[in-house]
Amino acid sequence: MLQSKLIGDTKKEWPNEATLKSHGLLLKGGYIKQMASGIFTLMPLGKRVSAKIENIIREEMNRIDAEEVLMPLVATKKLWDGAGRYDAIGSELLRFKDRTGTDMVLSMTHEEAAVFSVLNEAASYTKYPFSIYQIQTKFRDEARSRGGLIRVREFTMKDAYSFHTSEESLNEVYDKYYDAYNKIFARVGIPEVIAVASDTGMMGGSGAHEYMLLCDAGEDKIVTCDSCDYSANMDVAKARETTPATTEMKEIEEIHTPNVKTIEDLTNFLEIPATNLAKAVVYYRIDTEEVVVVFIRADKEVNETKLRNILKVDDEHLVPKAEEDDGICYGFIGPVGFTSNIKTTFVYDKSLENEASLIAGANKKDYHISGVNFKRDVKAQEFVDVAKVSANDTCVKCGKPTLKISNGIEVGNIFKLGKKYTSAMGMTYLDENGKAQTPIMGCYGIGVGRLMASVLEAKADERRVNWPAAIAPFNIHICPLDYTKNDGVKAITDELYAKLEGLGYEVLLDDRAKSAGVKFADSDLIGAPIRVVVSARNIENSKYEVKCLGDAEATLVDMDNIYEYIDTKMKGWEV
Amino acid sequence: MLQSKLIGDTKKEWPNEATLKSHGLLLKGGYIKQMASGIFTLMPLGKRVSAKIENIIREEMNRIDAEEVLMPLVATKKLWDGAGRYDAIGSELLRFKDRTGTDMVLSMTHEEAAVFSVLNEAASYTKYPFSIYQIQTKFRDEARSRGGLIRVREFTMKDAYSFHTSEESLNEVYDKYYDAYNKIFARVGIPEVIAVASDTGMMGGSGAHEYMLLCDAGEDKIVTCDSCDYSANMDVAKARETTPATTEMKEIEEIHTPNVKTIEDLTNFLEIPATNLAKAVVYYRIDTEEVVVVFIRADKEVNETKLRNILKVDDEHLVPKAEEDDGICYGFIGPVGFTSNIKTTFVYDKSLENEASLIAGANKKDYHISGVNFKRDVKAQEFVDVAKVSANDTCVKCGKPTLKISNGIEVGNIFKLGKKYTSAMGMTYLDENGKAQTPIMGCYGIGVGRLMASVLEAKADERRVNWPAAIAPFNIHICPLDYTKNDGVKAITDELYAKLEGLGYEVLLDDRAKSAGVKFADSDLIGAPIRVVVSARNIENSKYEVKCLGDAEATLVDMDNIYEYIDTKMKGWEV
Repeated sequence: MLQSKLIGDTKKEWPNEATLKSHGLLLKGGYIKQMASGIFTLMPLGKRVSAKIENIIREEMNRIDAEEVLMPLVATKKLWDGAGRYDAIGSELLRFKDRTGTDMVLSMTHEEAAVFSVLNEAASYTKYPFSIYQIQTKFRDEARSRGGLIRVREFTMKDAYSFHTSEESLNEVYDKYYDAYNKIFARVGIPEVIAVASDTGMMGGSGAHEYMLLCDAGEDKIVTCDSCDYSANMDVAKARETTPATTEMKEIEEIHTPNVKTIEDLTNFLEIPATNLAKAVVYYRIDTEEVVVVFIRADKEVNETKLRNILKVDDEHLVPKAEEDDGICYGFIGPVGFTSNIKTTFVYDKSLENEASLIAGANKKDYHISGVNFKRDVKAQEFVDVAKVSANDTCVKCGKPTLKISNGIEVGNIFKLGKKYTSAMGMTYLDENGKAQTPIMGCYGIGVGRLMASVLEAKADERRVNWPAAIAPFNIHICPLDYTKNDGVKAITDELYAKLEGLGYEVLLDDRAKSAGVKFADSDLIGAPIRVVVSARNIENSKYEVKCLGDAEATLVDMDNIYEYIDTKMKGWEV
Repeated sequence: MLQSKLIGDTKKEWPNEATLKSHGLLLKGGYIKQMASGIFTLMPLGKRVSAKIENIIREEMNRIDAEEVLMPLVATKKLWDGAGRYDAIGSELLRFKDRTGTDMVLSMTHEEAAVFSVLNEAASYTKYPFSIYQIQTKFRDEARSRGGLIRVREFTMKDAYSFHTSEESLNEVYDKYYDAYNKIFARVGIPEVIAVASDTGMMGGSGAHEYMLLCDAGEDKIVTCDSCDYSANMDVAKARETTPATTEMKEIEEIHTPNVKTIEDLTNFLEIPATNLAKAVVYYRIDTEEVVVVFIRADKEVNETKLRNILKVDDEHLVPKAEEDDGICYGFIGPVGFTSNIKTTFVYDKSLENEASLIAGANKKDYHISGVNFKRDVKAQEFVDVAKVSANDTCVKCGKPTLKISNGIEVGNIFKLGKKYTSAMGMTYLDENGKAQTPIMGCYGIGVGRLMASVLEAKADERRVNWPAAIAPFNIHICPLDYTKNDGVKAITDELYAKLEGLGYEVLLDDRAKSAGVKFADSDLIGAPIRVVVSARNIENSKYEVKCLGDAEATLVDMDNIYEYIDTKMKGWEV
């Protein structure tokens, strides 16, 4: 197409509101237009990239025999009551009433809809396993949308749902999705995406992986091991149990610690390491109106996702406890003689289990106690893993102290859901013996817009989008110099343009009366993998100047050889 | 694909809830699943047909240089305040609040979003004309969804918006869309769709066409002329002015008409035709709390769309007036001496303008008056066209009394919008003289799901979908008999299936252990344009039995010739 007609101008300045590289490039290049908080229009360039990503996803889904459907965005409360999620999910689920006063939602995911859609369509075991998928609009009322397309409210997602008669079948199909996802990320140009074990969160289920692009812009924390292939989301990452720092049991003794409230103060004051202390972290649980006190060795931090999973509470209902006049001796909290005016639940981290003798708060202003043994002194029965993994913790898999923490963007996820939805919604099939059984489910998601932005986080710099060839909005960008002034340039250019379009390439022709500098800068923001510069000087030598994705310098190509040159380049990028 | 794996079983019985042929077939054939009132899942067969229709639309949009975008479904009140539609549209516009309490809507159309998306993208006249389009989800909170996909609440729509610097440019591009639409309807298999002049309704603007499929299932009334190509939606259809039935002026005289309240009673009582009477039709306008009395010649009916357009009131705010104790003498209302306790507006239809002497109510129980001349007696200044066209009215175009009224389904529409949205939202460009101007818009819609259902209304019978070849979910349906029992049949079938898939056809293989009757009945509901039956008996003669779309009988085709036979058939259907 002619660039003069392309809707979505490049902007001269880096957009002030951009918080991430991808956000800035998508705005500056004219790919997106913000309509409201977390709500965007995909302009023609953005839609082109998105459509290519969607087609790659569609091909890989079809290849593993998933069948495409289209489920609605708007759903009834009744449907979402099917597995109890209408009440269980917080205000990110957008609820409203239709004109008849019926309670409705905007779907942020489609497990219930998928089950309802196939409820009576797979009555015999012979139909299993099967998958349905869709590429469809979703809405999640994020409190903090951010980063352009990285975290939005309205988004296009590919979501798939598989149905099975056995765990073996689920595992087999799950593995097919696992591989298909790796193919998809490789084909869109970011093969470096890794699958990490993840939290199943509100989805329920027995296992899950997230596909993570490791990069600074990511808001997820990913634990990987430098010595083996262990990887997990920080939310679920485990380290091998620590060696106890204290091995000798002692009697409890009171220590006067005037105004010494923080762990840092205490380690300085007592001149001992944090490994010899137990700290208390206090939360308030809104749903049950309880205080939750977590005791953990003081060198460790509480992983709130693990804590929520243990307590079975969602993130809106568990908040840090504010200090107030509630009988709790803030700054000096300890396990022995704890006081509170509010009902309290205690959680003990694994790190305390084998410690013989720790120092903790005395529940009395300006005092701590030493010699605390949790099993002996508070009869703690159950020690659970609520600790965050730290850098250089010991890997559970290989046993080396080489765990590393990186930022990552989640670009996809796959879940073994189990029977949560099928059972709650009464989906059954008859097995080989004619007996009614409940199918097992898996579900599999990829956010299309986030994937698009993630590719930029991985590949682009602030001037150049560097789209991988498979998803660039155009294949070839023809940038003639003096196109509007020099008839010779125009004639050669028009012929080249017509011929390349005739060969089936997507060609953008910069027909504007702009300087070479402006044209090249815009070209870097559009990112066709092949740029052909037509100039009077090169025409004299029967050459085009060609610069391809990844080239540091332009190459002069004989005009006669250009079609072969382009064909070879394009084939070389096929994945 | 293997039919045993296809999700979406055919149903044995005609669905009770089906109100239309298309509705019944889409449910019976497993194309759709109802999720809530007016909200459906497209199952794999439905999605396949929909995707083919979408691709045809996309090709024709691209061909006229419309650029594909994707605008969001969720929009802010603020955006919809841009042209005043947040307040102007009734409860079919679904309004809700997001988690921050911001007023939002689910978009049912995207004029405001389109203008906002391109607001700063076309600052110079050189960018014009241009079009953007999307194929996207919309929501309209219909009070009465009906007929499966004919009138739904959530739907996929192609909507396009064009922008212009002159009326000439709008007209030129409008004509391109006009032609593109005709191509689209021809390519999906219903070239019989006609474009009719239509009401611009809440969209504003200077002209519009609706694309109508004339069929009994339609809920629109379409006026066409049997003698020329005049066609219009009943909402805006005009007939040539009637010849006056009364030509002699008379004095007003009271007539005693005891208990004679209806026009029918009056024509019988006085033994005169309805053309000699004026009737009153009474409405109540909710927004201004006024009574609206329409006087019209008694052989005609009031066209409420015309009336609403004249009064500039939407359909929720103008309702038939209930008879109550309000000072109006119901049954005997007339123009002379009208009484009411409520503020009243009068509307006089064109049909009264040249009548010399009519009979009308006397505004007094059991009395009418004769000799009424509206110009003389009530000083009526303005006579407007609020009459419904009737069958055999005189055509405004050719002058023959051959107007006909048919039912039609609206499958698309095109509007000349003018500057309503661009002006209200402050979109401007600089013209050749550097002066800021407001662009002119057009907009162009096609409902994808409704189009799919309409094709069935036009082509199907209650047993057979008869999809046109271009949009059938599969190209070829192989129906082997005794596939699971007869190894010879299985071997031949598998080879045929593999080869046809290898040739790039979309092939459905009925691998189920079902009777020929069940297989053929299902095949009729799936509607691949080519059905190949493989049977032991025909294999003996080296034949396949082939039945194609439109064939009354099956044909025996030499096994060696099958590929050529299919190729010829498929090419014959290309549009």
